[in-house]
Amino acid sequence: MHLVMSFPDFSATDTQIQWQRFCDLLWYHDDLGVWLDVSRMHLNAAALAELTPPLEQAFEAMGKLEAGAIANADENRQVGHYWLRDPQLAPDQSVGQHIAAEINDIEQFGQAVVNGEIKSPTGEPFTDVLWIGIGGSGLGPLLMVRALQDTGKGLPFHFFDNVDPNGMSRVLGELGDALRTTLVVTVSKSGGTPEPHLGMEQARHRVESLGGNWPGQAVAITMANSHLDQQAKEETWLKRFDMFDWVGGRTSITSAVGLLPGALIGSDIRDFLAGAAQMDQATRVADVRRNPAALMAAAWYTAGEGKGKRDMVVLPYRDRLEVFSRYLQQLVMESLGKRLDRSGAVAHQGIAVYGNKGSTDQHAYVQQLRDGVDNFFVTFIEVLQDVDDIPEINGERPGDFLDGFVQGTRSALTEGGRQSLSISMRTFDSRRLGALIALFERAVGFYGELVNINAYHQPGVEAGKKAAAAILKLQKQVEEVLSDGTSRSVLEIQQAIGEGSDEAIFWILRHLTGNNRGYQAQGSWDSPASLRFAKG
Amino acid sequence: MHLVMSFPDFSATDTQIQWQRFCDLLWYHDDLGVWLDVSRMHLNAAALAELTPPLEQAFEAMGKLEAGAIANADENRQVGHYWLRDPQLAPDQSVGQHIAAEINDIEQFGQAVVNGEIKSPTGEPFTDVLWIGIGGSGLGPLLMVRALQDTGKGLPFHFFDNVDPNGMSRVLGELGDALRTTLVVTVSKSGGTPEPHLGMEQARHRVESLGGNWPGQAVAITMANSHLDQQAKEETWLKRFDMFDWVGGRTSITSAVGLLPGALIGSDIRDFLAGAAQMDQATRVADVRRNPAALMAAAWYTAGEGKGKRDMVVLPYRDRLEVFSRYLQQLVMESLGKRLDRSGAVAHQGIAVYGNKGSTDQHAYVQQLRDGVDNFFVTFIEVLQDVDDIPEINGERPGDFLDGFVQGTRSALTEGGRQSLSISMRTFDSRRLGALIALFERAVGFYGELVNINAYHQPGVEAGKKAAAAILKLQKQVEEVLSDGTSRSVLEIQQAIGEGSDEAIFWILRHLTGNNRGYQAQGSWDSPASLRFAKG
Repeated sequence: MHLVMSFPDFSATDTQIQWQRFCDLLWYHDDLGVWLDVSRMHLNAAALAELTPPLEQAFEAMGKLEAGAIANADENRQVGHYWLRDPQLAPDQSVGQHIAAEINDIEQFGQAVVNGEIKSPTGEPFTDVLWIGIGGSGLGPLLMVRALQDTGKGLPFHFFDNVDPNGMSRVLGELGDALRTTLVVTVSKSGGTPEPHLGMEQARHRVESLGGNWPGQAVAITMANSHLDQQAKEETWLKRFDMFDWVGGRTSITSAVGLLPGALIGSDIRDFLAGAAQMDQATRVADVRRNPAALMAAAWYTAGEGKGKRDMVVLPYRDRLEVFSRYLQQLVMESLGKRLDRSGAVAHQGIAVYGNKGSTDQHAYVQQLRDGVDNFFVTFIEVLQDVDDIPEINGERPGDFLDGFVQGTRSALTEGGRQSLSISMRTFDSRRLGALIALFERAVGFYGELVNINAYHQPGVEAGKKAAAAILKLQKQVEEVLSDGTSRSVLEIQQAIGEGSDEAIFWILRHLTGNNRGYQAQGSWDSPASLRFAKG
Repeated sequence: MHLVMSFPDFSATDTQIQWQRFCDLLWYHDDLGVWLDVSRMHLNAAALAELTPPLEQAFEAMGKLEAGAIANADENRQVGHYWLRDPQLAPDQSVGQHIAAEINDIEQFGQAVVNGEIKSPTGEPFTDVLWIGIGGSGLGPLLMVRALQDTGKGLPFHFFDNVDPNGMSRVLGELGDALRTTLVVTVSKSGGTPEPHLGMEQARHRVESLGGNWPGQAVAITMANSHLDQQAKEETWLKRFDMFDWVGGRTSITSAVGLLPGALIGSDIRDFLAGAAQMDQATRVADVRRNPAALMAAAWYTAGEGKGKRDMVVLPYRDRLEVFSRYLQQLVMESLGKRLDRSGAVAHQGIAVYGNKGSTDQHAYVQQLRDGVDNFFVTFIEVLQDVDDIPEINGERPGDFLDGFVQGTRSALTEGGRQSLSISMRTFDSRRLGALIALFERAVGFYGELVNINAYHQPGVEAGKKAAAAILKLQKQVEEVLSDGTSRSVLEIQQAIGEGSDEAIFWILRHLTGNNRGYQAQGSWDSPASLRFAKG
């Protein structure tokens, strides 16, 4: 066992010191075959010693959260995503039983759809999945599919993850007649989020205009008794699965939101859950040096001085993990990006996250990472096992080059004084994906404790929703005013309505006149105040 | 015409002042139908007045660059991407003629492949394209395809944009036998970049093991007389197109690198070039207030204090533009992320870029943007024209919601004191994509002048390449040492080689033992120094 805080300080130039640091700090999980290396972050023994008492408090807080405390105090909610991969952990036995039954149900339903036992309304097997969800309900499924689907296994996925009409048109165009044999899954916790609601209505409209039978191909994932849930019951949709009040969108991937896609692509969802459970266990260890999530949170804290002064750049050297950084964007930024800390003091917390994949991104922005502004740290993700069907040609193996690129970039960054941490995995599969997600979930939770914020609410999202609703209301008012056919300036319209800003009204009119909806503008578009608008 | 510097200062709360500012600062191009609004950046009249003399110098420098000056002084190169969309601009008439002929050739070849006049070696029309390129040679084509391809038009694209063997295996698996009717395009300026070279070799190997005829389906885009060019000639590949010494990878999208994909998806490449040419003309205007690229560069400068202190978050509210932020990541970060300015002083310049698409990203990280750390500004991109085949249902139109979301988010950010700029377009098509790219290219050029760096070289990329090559060499040395079957520790291997760091040797061995290549490890993996490695 290591001595608690004995390891050398970071050195950009002395490889012997760094080797010692690497050996001292390396965390390894034998059964998962996963390593975490934080030796190239500027986390030194003194800093880690200082962070140890608050991290030990974080371990305690996490214990309470897992035991069912109201960890999301502002919303008076429990935070239960850890129960999803270990139902016995749920504080209430009936909750645990419910989770376990739901997993069985998802697995059976997914298998029956994939092997054709459950058929589409045409009598043929389902050929495709159209997944309608946004935020965690879109990103989680996208990650599952891109990371885990193997060629020829399960059903191909299509996504409505936005309300862009052009995007919807493109997806429906690609599906064509196959929409009639497409399983359409709508995910909405409350049933009231506009994006999935509008997507569902458009999909349904298209299904019905193709002569299809909507309820026979529709699936809902939602909270019990939500509006969507009631609709699905009344109309006898093919299936419905639960979302739980105590699971937030950004940590819903181990619920039906991620498990159903897993099952529909023929992936092993039990293994996925098992990997997450194993990592959960590893990140419960109440010893900072032996807890990978605590090491990560401490390293993030030091890099950004506890104020998010450095962005997290995520570089997985594996095509399958290309959307993982987008997944982490939500997990990290929505959890940590908060105005107030839990004492009510203004804190403006957060860590910005971006990245795609290595070695591709080396050609995009490693120039800046190495030479430019030092406002980031890199998270390298490496997978050791290559495939067998990409052979050595002329003595060259792509996998060796990929290994060379990850090491080369890591070295170049260190030499330039830039920080990085590295996660290495023996292999990549559903179990390791589960473990990876659980590792970051826990690190985000610990970091939230270090900076004393509620990592489980998202008050800022509400403000944007209200502002959007106000614009939609204002649009109706603008249309009402112009319905008499009279030509008016923005100011005149604003005065007629008696509310709304000139600029918002201008933007609305620009959108209306940009489409064939009967609105015209007179005047010059670079002089908005002088323009006159009319209907007819 | 506006008075040169008369517009009110930014106000987060006074909508009347902001309306005045919006009207005063709004830039509009009537024929393109494109607006730029920088009124919600904290760029005030005093700051713009201060930046005007250096921007006027930037106009002059840009004039010289377009006239053929050695603008990339470190590499002694001209910077000629502006000539590609206006060949008459080229300082040498023969260069202009060459460009024009190349465009004709690309257009004809693309059309002939798409309509089946040029056939695959099997005698059938080509069914697919496998595009092999990295950096700008991968991102540009990806952007063209994702942004411009319409359902059922042109050929479907597949990409090798990495050396991940699992990724290659997945792409080849998806193609299956269709690889024999796939046009395989390899893009490599020098022919020496490992990623496209390895990808080409793997594709060729698979084609040949399927009994295909490689030269009959292979296309090269490369510099005249490069190694790849010579190979293509000797083996009589189906076609080759030029890359020019004076076009950098990150500005190559208006060369064959972007035009050939455009032609192969049945898009209008003349329109694409025309849009870029129109924007080039608009950004030549030597009046800061009437030059959109100058306004953007000035706004970036103010937001980041000329030191990249704020990240650029790119939020296009259109699914088709989802990869545009990745495209900008390369354009901006590789151009601006520099250690030294042109006087040789250490500057550590750059602007970090990230984003995907709205409204999707609102659910991922607008929580942080609105409430969290104020280390960014947003670039909204809005398209007014919706499609006709996504109808109004129950009084709700997805396009109106999208408009509500962009406006709502923009307002919420302003109220929170956060900065944003907005680009609005009447419609989105190949012409507007060309214009959008040209706008950012020029803004990056101007910003480079403002901070006095060479925006056209990438010295840091070389360091990473050398470091990677050193790792590959070290791997061969490690394998050589272990070829005698003796078991050794990392330190013993390092001593036997006489060079290389222990840590690099450990990483190499971890990768080797993680695959079936005959290497074994003994000991505990969380104690690297104690492990012993052997072959056999």
